[in-house]
Amino acid sequence: MGGLYLEDVKPGDRFRSDAYVVTETAIIDFAQQFDPQPFHLDCDVAERSVFEGLAASGWHTAAIAMRLMMTGPMQFVGGAIGLGVDELRWPVALRPGDTVQLVTEISEVRASRSKPRHGIIRISNLMRNQHGEVVLSYRANAMVQARQVNES
Amino acid sequence: MGGLYLEDVKPGDRFRSDAYVVTETAIIDFAQQFDPQPFHLDCDVAERSVFEGLAASGWHTAAIAMRLMMTGPMQFVGGAIGLGVDELRWPVALRPGDTVQLVTEISEVRASRSKPRHGIIRISNLMRNQHGEVVLSYRANAMVQARQVNES
Repeated sequence: MGGLYLEDVKPGDRFRSDAYVVTETAIIDFAQQFDPQPFHLDCDVAERSVFEGLAASGWHTAAIAMRLMMTGPMQFVGGAIGLGVDELRWPVALRPGDTVQLVTEISEVRASRSKPRHGIIRISNLMRNQHGEVVLSYRANAMVQARQVNES
Repeated sequence: MGGLYLEDVKPGDRFRSDAYVVTETAIIDFAQQFDPQPFHLDCDVAERSVFEGLAASGWHTAAIAMRLMMTGPMQFVGGAIGLGVDELRWPVALRPGDTVQLVTEISEVRASRSKPRHGIIRISNLMRNQHGEVVLSYRANAMVQARQVNES
């Protein structure tokens, strides 16, 4: 776990993850477990589908973004507890061999109303492939620890 | 792949999945791959966290719901392509040993504006544990095949 507290971040702060290569095996493994639709499982069938080739499950794409966030530079003491996600979109399909990178931007920082020594951050996540195309975007609220007890 | 087309569903239709048991091993395996925060990985550390015990990653919870939807009674010819998800929430944590079940309700059905012989369904997903508590909820739009070419 990293060393950030609520007070260490502010709206506009951006964090860039490492790059991550998505393999065909990983796409098929995830789909077998969680999203067994043919266009996530079988290259030949996928060619004749609306995806015109093998594509990662949208939930796999989201899970990869979480991995990149949790192994990236924005690490809070005690972790970040996801409270909710909105506007989750997959503008371009994630493909075998793609290299992706996540940028997390903080849009709001506030004290928690219910938990002392905690706060809420609002983030905007954008994951792009090697061509700069957005393969995933969403907004989320997460609870993180604060260094100071709220005065409110 | 199942046999439903756009024309076979209408707002208010509900589909109930099989029950699914979530194991501690599955929670830890997923977290190691995609969400390596201690409260998803280690029972002892999790006891002292805000979760007060091991809890599944929210993205694991969402992936399990997808599995239940894709292996359940609502199967469209050619699959269902997720277009977007909103209001993704985790009101109660998913725990080792929980048995979950997903109910999908269709809230809207319309022809696609851009793709002939396709339509958009809007769904509301609720996944509950064995106590009837909601462990996941969200709304989503998905593209499915239509039997007839749109007349619009």
